[in-house]
Formats: sequence, C-alpha cells, structure tokens
Amino acid sequence: MDSSTTTFPPSELLELWFIGQHETSRATPNGPSQTLRDAQDVGYDMLTTPITTASFQARVATQVEEHLQKLSSATSPDAVPVPLISPFSPKDTELTPNDSNSALVAVSSPWIDLGSTDPLIANVSLQVFNLEIAYAAFCGIQHVMLHGPLPGSNTVLYARAVSEALGMGPYIQLHILLPMVGELEQESGDGTHLAELAREQDVSLPEEDDLSEDDFSSWDTWDTLRTVCDYDSRLSIALEIPRQLPNKQVQSRWYSEPVRSMIFPHTSFLRNAKGFPVLHKSHQQYLTQFMRLRQTPWILLADVDPIVPRTESPAPEPTPAEAANLVQKDPVPHLRYLRHLQQTQPPRAPIERFGQGYQDYMQSPLQPLSDNLESITYEVFEKDPIKYDWYERAVALALKDLSAKVGGKREIIVAVVGAGRGPLVSKALLASRSSGVKVKCWAVEKNQNAYVHLQRRNVTDRLWDNKVTIVKTDMRAWKGPVVDGNVEKVDILVSELLGSFADNELSPECLDGVQHVLNPEHGVNIPQSYSAHMTPISTPRLYHDLLSRGGTEKWEIPYVVMFQQFDFLSLQHDKDENPLADVQDAWVFSHPAPTVILDQAEARRGGSAENGGAGGAVGGDGSNEHNSRSCKVKFTIQNHGVCHGLAGYFESVLYASESGEKVELSTNPVTMEAKSCDMISWFPIFFPLKTPIHLPDNAELEVSMWRQTDDRKVWYEWVVEAFVRLNGRKQRVAMSELHSSRKNGCLM
Amino acid sequence: MDSSTTTFPPSELLELWFIGQHETSRATPNGPSQTLRDAQDVGYDMLTTPITTASFQARVATQVEEHLQKLSSATSPDAVPVPLISPFSPKDTELTPNDSNSALVAVSSPWIDLGSTDPLIANVSLQVFNLEIAYAAFCGIQHVMLHGPLPGSNTVLYARAVSEALGMGPYIQLHILLPMVGELEQESGDGTHLAELAREQDVSLPEEDDLSEDDFSSWDTWDTLRTVCDYDSRLSIALEIPRQLPNKQVQSRWYSEPVRSMIFPHTSFLRNAKGFPVLHKSHQQYLTQFMRLRQTPWILLADVDPIVPRTESPAPEPTPAEAANLVQKDPVPHLRYLRHLQQTQPPRAPIERFGQGYQDYMQSPLQPLSDNLESITYEVFEKDPIKYDWYERAVALALKDLSAKVGGKREIIVAVVGAGRGPLVSKALLASRSSGVKVKCWAVEKNQNAYVHLQRRNVTDRLWDNKVTIVKTDMRAWKGPVVDGNVEKVDILVSELLGSFADNELSPECLDGVQHVLNPEHGVNIPQSYSAHMTPISTPRLYHDLLSRGGTEKWEIPYVVMFQQFDFLSLQHDKDENPLADVQDAWVFSHPAPTVILDQAEARRGGSAENGGAGGAVGGDGSNEHNSRSCKVKFTIQNHGVCHGLAGYFESVLYASESGEKVELSTNPVTMEAKSCDMISWFPIFFPLKTPIHLPDNAELEVSMWRQTDDRKVWYEWVVEAFVRLNGRKQRVAMSELHSSRKNGCLM
Repeated sequence: MDSSTTTFPPSELLELWFIGQHETSRATPNGPSQTLRDAQDVGYDMLTTPITTASFQARVATQVEEHLQKLSSATSPDAVPVPLISPFSPKDTELTPNDSNSALVAVSSPWIDLGSTDPLIANVSLQVFNLEIAYAAFCGIQHVMLHGPLPGSNTVLYARAVSEALGMGPYIQLHILLPMVGELEQESGDGTHLAELAREQDVSLPEEDDLSEDDFSSWDTWDTLRTVCDYDSRLSIALEIPRQLPNKQVQSRWYSEPVRSMIFPHTSFLRNAKGFPVLHKSHQQYLTQFMRLRQTPWILLADVDPIVPRTESPAPEPTPAEAANLVQKDPVPHLRYLRHLQQTQPPRAPIERFGQGYQDYMQSPLQPLSDNLESITYEVFEKDPIKYDWYERAVALALKDLSAKVGGKREIIVAVVGAGRGPLVSKALLASRSSGVKVKCWAVEKNQNAYVHLQRRNVTDRLWDNKVTIVKTDMRAWKGPVVDGNVEKVDILVSELLGSFADNELSPECLDGVQHVLNPEHGVNIPQSYSAHMTPISTPRLYHDLLSRGGTEKWEIPYVVMFQQFDFLSLQHDKDENPLADVQDAWVFSHPAPTVILDQAEARRGGSAENGGAGGAVGGDGSNEHNSRSCKVKFTIQNHGVCHGLAGYFESVLYASESGEKVELSTNPVTMEAKSCDMISWFPIFFPLKTPIHLPDNAELEVSMWRQTDDRKVWYEWVVEAFVRLNGRKQRVAMSELHSSRKNGCLM
Repeated sequence: MDSSTTTFPPSELLELWFIGQHETSRATPNGPSQTLRDAQDVGYDMLTTPITTASFQARVATQVEEHLQKLSSATSPDAVPVPLISPFSPKDTELTPNDSNSALVAVSSPWIDLGSTDPLIANVSLQVFNLEIAYAAFCGIQHVMLHGPLPGSNTVLYARAVSEALGMGPYIQLHILLPMVGELEQESGDGTHLAELAREQDVSLPEEDDLSEDDFSSWDTWDTLRTVCDYDSRLSIALEIPRQLPNKQVQSRWYSEPVRSMIFPHTSFLRNAKGFPVLHKSHQQYLTQFMRLRQTPWILLADVDPIVPRTESPAPEPTPAEAANLVQKDPVPHLRYLRHLQQTQPPRAPIERFGQGYQDYMQSPLQPLSDNLESITYEVFEKDPIKYDWYERAVALALKDLSAKVGGKREIIVAVVGAGRGPLVSKALLASRSSGVKVKCWAVEKNQNAYVHLQRRNVTDRLWDNKVTIVKTDMRAWKGPVVDGNVEKVDILVSELLGSFADNELSPECLDGVQHVLNPEHGVNIPQSYSAHMTPISTPRLYHDLLSRGGTEKWEIPYVVMFQQFDFLSLQHDKDENPLADVQDAWVFSHPAPTVILDQAEARRGGSAENGGAGGAVGGDGSNEHNSRSCKVKFTIQNHGVCHGLAGYFESVLYASESGEKVELSTNPVTMEAKSCDMISWFPIFFPLKTPIHLPDNAELEVSMWRQTDDRKVWYEWVVEAFVRLNGRKQRVAMSELHSSRKNGCLM
C-alpha cells in the first residue's frame, strides 16, 4: 500500500485556458494598454507587445553601419570604440508602467543576435537586450519573450546573456521562443536584422563543427541554455507548434520541459470543410496533453485574428445586410475554435482524476511499521476500482485449490494481516461466498484505532456477521489462530504491504515475521510474489525541484511521485510500432520463504559465533541478510538526452492457481494495462541522480542497484554509468556518485 | 606579480624514503611483531603482513565447496542458506593489537573476489573482507592493502564493498593493489582462490561487453573505485611497477593519482654487470618523480630480500672463510640499492626548490589594489633569477630605441609604477649604465611602508645616488613627473603588475589609469603586452581538496597553485615526438591603449545619456568595458580521462625592440623554457570544475571563458562542454555549470 498518499485528492478543477494573441510586428498606435483592452473585448486573456519601436531599431542599425564605415577607414580596428546605444527616448518605446501590464508578455527585439560570432554584433545586441529587459522590469512587466539563438551562433554566449538578465531582477521571467524542430514558422520581423551586418570572423570553430542537425537540435539549444542558467525556474520555453508535428519522441521530450506558452502560428491551422480554422487531430491531442499539466502553458495565437482598434467614434448603425455580413465575418475564428476545444476536452482517466494535484509532487515514503494511518488514508485506498476486486478473485482461486487439497473436510482458515479498516476481510468473505468454500476468518491489525473500527464492523456489517476474529497485535508477534483452545495454522495469509517499488515498505520483513502462523504444507500467501522494475527518465522539473531545496541528503532519497512532466529515455516498440518504455527487472521476492532460510536468519539474530558473527552488512548480525538484493541492468538510449534519475515500478502475482489462472497487479507502464488497468493505489517511485548525465545517441546506461539491510532497517543504493561505442570500443562518458538512502532507510 | 605567495618558502627538506618489504605468502612463525623487528634489523622501515592464515583460507574454501555440494543435490537453490563464515579463532590470524602495528601494512586475503558475478562467491568474499578489515582495525592497524578487482568482475560491486569498509572505522586506510597496465607481475598466493569455485552465472552483461582493454584499463578500474567512493582521502593506490614501464601518458596519469605505495616485484629489477640488482634508468626517473611529491609514497620490495628470522641462540663465531662469504652474500641487495638511490638523487630545479611546500596548495589570489604587501613578500619575489634581468634587458633596448628617437637631446624619463622596494628602479639604472643612455628616474608607490624603504634606499644605495624621485601615490592618481616646475610626460613606464593569468591582478586597469602620464607620441610600456593561456587538466588531488571544504563558492574561484600531481589531458608533440601540453590562447592586452578607447571609457564613467547608459555588464556604466574579454577555444583529448578544471598561464612581451629583439616572460609550459627558463615568480592558476567531466578517447573539449568587468571589479566566468563524434556526428557528452568568480572578483 502506498501509505504516503495521506490526504484526500482535491476535486477536479475546471480547466482554465489562458489564450493570448501574438503579432510578429505589432503596432500599438494607442499604446499597449489600449490594445490589450481591445483584445480582451474580443475574448483574449493576454497580449504580446514589443518593448521597442521600429524607430529604435532603425537608430541602432544606423549606429552599427556608421561604426562599420569608421572601421573600414581606420588604421587599427582596436582604435575604434564600440558604438554605445544611448537610453530610450519616448519614441523608442510605447511601454509605460501600468497595472494592466500583468496581462502583457513583452517581446524582446527579434532583430538582435546575442550569440553572434562577430563581437561587435554580440556587443550591440547585448546592449539592446539589457536596455529592454531593464525597462520592461521597470514597467512592472513580469514576462518577456525572447527569440532563441540564431542557427550557427554561439549558444553558450547567448546563454550567458540570458543568465545575466535573470540576475537583473527577482521577478523577471524569460520565455525563450523556440521551434519544436528546424526553424520558426512564424513571420520574421521587418527592418534590419543585426545579424545581416555581421562581418566574417576568424572564428576558432569552423562551421561544419556545429552539432549535427537532427530533430533534437532545437532541444539541444534549450538544454545548453538551461544548463548554463542552472535550471533557473524563471527560464522557460515559448514553444512554436509547427504545421507538421515531429515524431513522438520529440513531442514527449518537449512535453517534459518547462513550456510556459505554446505558440500557434497561422501555419499550424488547417481549414475545415466550411473554411473555418481548426487544428489537426494530432495537434489537438498534444495540446490536451499540455493542458492537463499542473501548471498549464498559455496559448498564443501568432499573426492570426489581429486586434482591430476600436474606432473612437461609435460606428454608424449597420444596415441589415451589413449586420448579416458581420455575423459571418467572425473577427477571431481561431480564438473561437480554441475556446470550443477548451469546452470539449475529453474526460480524464481514473488515475489522472485521482492524482489531480499530486502530479510531479515528490513525497518521502512513510515508515509503515512505526506510523499509524488515519482513517481518511484508508478510505482513499479503498476506493481503488481494481485492486480489491483482484484480491477477491485471487482469494477465490486459492480457496478452490485448497478446498480440493483438504478434501472439503474443514473450513479454510483465512487471516488478513494488517487488516486496516477491513476491506480485504470483506473481499475474503465475498470470495468464500462466490466460490462456495467455507472459511474461518481472522483479522490482525496493530493500529489500535483501526482495531476499534474492525470490532464495530464485525457487529454491524451483515457480511461479517460477527464471525470474524479480530486480533490486536503486530503481525510479527501473533501466535496464530486459536480454534477450540488449540493454536491452528493459517491456510491463506492475505496482506497488502506492497510499496511503489514492491518491497520498499518492508513487505518481505513483515511476511517473514508472520510466516510461523502459516500452514507449512500448503499455506498460501496472497500476494505470492512481487518484483521491482525500473527505467531511466529525464525529468527537468523534479531535478529543478530538488535543486531548489537545501542540504545534500535530498539526492539520497527515493521519492513516491506521480510522474507527469517527464520523458522515458530508453524505448522499445510495441507490436504497433508505438514507442514504449524499456522497463527492466530489478529483483523478486516470493512467499512463503524456505524454512531453512528463516531458520538460519533466526539463528543469526544475536550474532552467536556458531552462526556467523559478520553479516553482509556492517554492524548487523545478518538476521535479515536473506532479504538483501542487488542487480545490474542495462538500457540503450536511442535519442540523446539528459538522465535525471530512475523511475521505479512494481508487479505482483497475487495468486497463480493450479489451473493456470493468474491474478496480477502492475504499475509497470509496459504491463499495467494488461494486468491491472485503471488501478490507482500506487504512484511510481523516483531514484534521483545528484548530477544529471548527458547521454549521446545510442548511449548505454548501466544501473547498479542494491536493496541493503542491517538488523534495524532497509535502504537502497544506486549508481548509474554511461558508455558509448567509439570505433567499436566501449568507453565511459559518465558515472554517477554512489547514492544511498541509508540515513533515510525504512525502519524494521 | 604573484602577490599570493606571501610567506617565505621553507628550506629544502632531507628526502625521507620509507622502504618496506612485501611477501606474497608471508609466514610469520614468531608473529608479525618479531618479523617486523627482524626486518628493521636489516634496514627496512616497514613490512606487510597477511591478516589471516592459510588455515583460515582452507576453512573458507571447504565451506564453499560443501555449500556447492548441497546446492547440487538441493531441489531448489533458494532453499540452501549461504555459508556463514564464523569469527576468527586464534589459528585464523597471527595479528594481535600491538604498538609496533603502525609499521605494518596488513594485506587482505588475495584469494577473495569481491566483484564476483557469482553471488555466492561475492557474498563469502564480502564476509571474509569485512571480518578482516574489522579485525585489522581492532588491532590498531591503519593501513590495509587490498588486491584490485579481478579482470572481468563487477568493479562497481567491488567498489561498493570498499566504500562500505571505509565506513567501518575513521582511521582505516585502504591501498588498492593495481598494476600500471595489464595484470600484476608479482606472484599470486597459494591455496584455493574463491574465483576458481565460481559457477557460471546468468550475467545480464555478456563478457564481450566489458570496457575494451587498453593501456588505461587498470586506471579505468581505479577511476570507477574512487568515483563510487567519492574521492575518499583514505582510499589510495598500491601501484605495482612492471618490468617494462608503459608509455609516458600512462605514467603521468598514475603520477596524478594518490599513489600511497610503489611496489617493486623482482621482475622490476635488472642485474648489472656485477650481478647486483638495479633499476632501469626509466624506472629510476619515475621513482625520482614520485619521491619529490609533497607526500612521498612508500616503497615496497615484493618477494625479494626475504626477512630471515634470527635464530634464538646466537650463531657460532664464523670461520674467516665463512665471514668472507657472508660479506659477499648481502642478504638485502635490493634494499641496499634503493638506499643508494636515495642518497644519490639529482638536484632539484630552481622552481622546485622555490616551490617546496607549495605543491598543489591552492591559494586565493589577493586583492592587489586594496592590500599592502609585506617586506618579506617583496624579498621572495626579488630573488627571481630571471625576471629582473629580463626587465633590465628590456629597459636597455627601449632606452636605445628612444634615445635614437629624441636624438640623444635629453635624458629619458623612466618611471617605475608600483615600485615596491625598488628592484625595477635598480634595473632601470643598470640598463641606463649598460646602454649609455642617460635617464631621469621616478619611483611611484602607494604602499606607505615601502615608501619609507624607497626613500632610505635612495640615500644609501650607491646606484640610486639620491637621483630617484620617490612619489607616494596610487599610480592612477599620479599627475606625472615634475621637471623644473613643469609636469612632463614619461618616456618609459615600467611596471610589474602581472598575475598568474596575466590580467588577473588588474594590470590593464592600473596601466589605463596611469596612461595619462605617458608620452603620447613615443611612450613605451614595459611590459608592452601580455596574454592568458590555458589547457584542461586532470587533478584528483585538487578536486578532492576542494570537495572536502565547506560551502559551494569554492568552485567559483580561480586559485593560484603550483601544480605537481596532475596530468595534462590535451597533448601535442614536440619536434622530438615527446608529448607536450596543448596550451591555447585566451586573449591579449597591449599598452598603451588607443586614446579614443580611454576617452570613451572616461566619458562613460557616470553614465550620462549621451554616452550610453547601459554598459555591457549589469549595474555598471561601462567605463571599464573595453577591458572585458571572451574566448571560445577547443581541445582534443587523446586518451580518455577525467577533467577537473583548467590550468591557466601567461606570456608577456616586456619589450620588442625596433631591431627585432624581443624580451619575453612565460609560464606557459610550451614556451617557458625558450622564453624565461628557471623563472620562479609565478605559479599557474587553476579554474576548477564543480563536477568532473569524464572524457572518452578523442573527445573534443570546448571552453568558453570570459573576463568580466563592471565599474567596481573584475572577475572570470567559465563553461566547459565535451563532445564526441559518433558515426561522424558531433554529440554532447557533458556540459559544466557556468562558473563565475563574481562574488570573489578583484576589486578595482
């Protein structure tokens, strides 16, 4: 049971879509505030606006051209001072400080080239950029959109300028305008682009030396930017959605990144049969995916549905013919279409509804053995539409098998250990009813509060009918069911002790501790076995979240988290050639454990010389060493990317009947649909990496992982190594620290 | 001037060599303490000794074999408990707690296999290892030598065991026995090696998947170990020196690592003409290199000159013939040879003598403009055997050129700015004497304490003869030399303001500030120009040193350091095909600066609108922007390795005469021998990387570096990116943070 989810999920919120309008060359003759009001009148929530005017652009271009002329006639180029861009005059900008500026996204001049390999152009661009950012901040504007670096320019130089700008004010947020692949589709601005004035430079890096272009090139640029800016939360992406969406891998990569706004240029729209603008099905799906994020991006319509200034004097009353024409000529058909999409979003899956508010929220797993759960937590888990039904099916199958073994001579003894508020007791009784096999039922619970509830339910619940024996004890201390004064053995021991990574809430230790009550000949555990699984992921969001926390222990903890904004790095393909995560097995636990193993463990407790004084782990005497595990697994990374950690899952066989029927649970994305679709009880687990690992195409990732144990607790350790094959030789490109949750281990 | 070297270097220490004896299968019938006494009697300083006995080894092997038999007859392998190794009995070990144990290196059993892919063997090996380490620690032994992982075994698994062992006690130090290349040459032990008992395993990684073997494979193993152990200072190397030394690159790689002991097996010795054991010239040189480290490794002779137990009763008086034979039969010829080497070590170079005690010691550069130097610091710098002579040569050349220009009509005005205790004044006067060109000399100094000294020297120094005008002022505030009541201009402005990275102690800013006193037609600066240079290095020692310090700012500071235990990662070859660092140019400064540049800078001070209010850097008005610099340089890494940062150097042209003669200074290892051999005044600079970067063979490293400035200070920023070419495509494998020394910048 995922005991970390201790509060009730909030009810589903109405989806709010913030939609704005972006104009590549906006004119705001009446000032941006008036244009914003005009836009809001027709239904927009926000607007982009340039920071400076065309006349400012012309002034700068002239200064650069004059400088170049001076240079050409100078004896030494070093003796010509750089042109200085003087501060704005009123005709350089139409922005003013204004309350309504919170609904404006200011756009930095698209005609500068911060990463220019010509130092002159880079210098002048930086002057313009700094003037603009400082002025926007002065005007109380929080959001500034900035064109990404030009192809072939120096991205690190560009990134440094951005990093510096983020330091200019604590509130300013920068949205870097980037295409998903290739180049931007929206119109480029008018006037002289400074890059056109760049001189041929003696660049130390020849041009063919650039990173090879591929579908991830634009993402590479972003990766450089955010790395130089140390994952600053005020740096995000304005992602332009192209006419043709790139492949799923590129889509999911961008989805995992902090996209603050999605830009839809006119090229991204199709026309339907009636001539209205619509989005392609794939675009709609991609948009829906984004609009379900905890922080939804803004939607910006670019160069469509322009804002028409209201004329000062009211228009004359239209003639009936004119009025009819006006109705037909919707001034904002693209906006109207998006509002329509907003209202017709498909319903969410159960796990999404359940997890609402928990997306990408990292929780430290609780201490299941030392903490008592609250009733509301139980209630949440009991709502799972799948899990308890599967338990009922498993118990029914086991009852049939056992009934055949004991020849139907006696009632089957079923014990639910860790009964909580009793849902598994009910399911066992229902299984008895449906299978026709009679049972005697015990419920064992250590939580004294739940114990009250169980006793009351035994009296009030018709199904229970006062026939369940309730025992208040830690299951490990239970002597077993007493029938007619004799201690009997349990035939079926039912428990729900699994954590997000199968064994991480000490199910193995608890079930070992109660195994003495189980019938040694034919006793059955439900679940019979469970296994841990994992896969490497890219999750800038969680990495940034951890980075912003204090201390260093944060990197050494596995977190329970409902992943949302992340990307699988190692892929396989399903039978329909759709990409699917490559999730690999870590290890497995089966119950009951062989008696000799538990006997040896018991003998080691206390560390007598005969039974070995030095266990596998330091300081312990090894009584739990049989529950330690380790694995080394290997993943292939198809597309280059950055690994921030490992996502962990579990699978469990509740019961495999002698007739071959299997009842299973799974959170493993590869098998969950087939094994336990729509189950909501568990979120996955996240093993973070302190230092993100850059992986080139076809890199090989090797994960070493341990479940460690001493006599007091259980913890995990993990190391990740990355390799490439260069001319057939395997070579290391990265190696993580040894991460260990020892200090935050699970107490036994 | 490298103002960070503020204390006088200690006098050269006598070299102490600690030499011990190592026996692959040592028997200590009278106990290790007695054997140690026997060894010390013949001249050894120390001894290795096994922790456990052959009988213990036999017991463990038997237990494993019995377990394997049980397994072969068991129905399920899971139902056979692992064999438990019970604690030592007296016959398992000859070690006891003893004061003399400090001169013992305990050797962990070489027959275990901690990295075995057979879980049984790995488990039993870990039990043995933990018992041994714990017992050695109990006995007060500080140093334990441990055989490195077996070829083909799981190095990460091995590393985890080592990491755990380091946590067993705060004093225990582990020396990992590793060959320089290939496999160990010393004899392997007797008895059953547990690896021989390993079963074929379903290993998830097929064997051909191992890192490809090359000359760096043994180093790769070490790199994995120390990375998993997070550069623990208690983890070091016992390096076996082979008969044939590997190439220089492999030699220098090991030299950069924490080698705690050098093991010389009998194969590493040759026989000279008289039949005595000697080391090859190359071995001698490599040994000498190591013995000059600040912390010298121990020398262990392996399986030669065995320790002969003294017989209890004194031997009978030898006959004369026997005595002669005894003299001939030296029992420890190898030891004697090494003692001979110790006494005949070659003398050290001046920079080594000067830097004794400073090797790999990181100093933060001082604030040259706000701190006053102490006399002893000046004294140290004045001892440089090259620098001041080169200044004299430069001034003499300039005097000749200028004398020709002014037609010998008047005395040449020489000003030494930042005169300190006056060494450059003396050199200027000597240059005048040698060139026959008459001078009038000014000495400008801001340090009031040095000012007293200068005045006194003017009276007492015969050369000065009261003819030097001493001015107490910051050079930037000096109005210029006053001759007959008129302010004249300076013909030659001499300064020594260079730092380890050329401009890092604000030479550009100071010389700009004093340029107004220089004759605008023909005034000469000495130095005329200076440039910064850099190259990537591997330096585990400095990385570990920084890692062990608190805070995070430590990664953002360039340190002045005399590199010793480090390795150049990017190599070129000199004309004799010897490897040589590839050191690349960052940027250059020349003086005097063009007047228009300084005029613009002056105009920007105060930020009036006409001259541009927004400088290149945030918050400043740009009056020093002309002294900002940036570069992007590229290095090729030939052999895979780990980059911990950049080593920085400088070159300077003191004066290039009109006849083509050039006087230059250099700390750049590529040019220093030709330009200013034996100069001692500067140590290099180190730009650290927060996260070490793993580089595969033929990786490309791109360094972006900036000299940043606002109106108050100067600082550096650096970013490092690593790429590989995969199938002809350039791909990123690593990118560092943006490092910035802004918070620790040099105040103007």
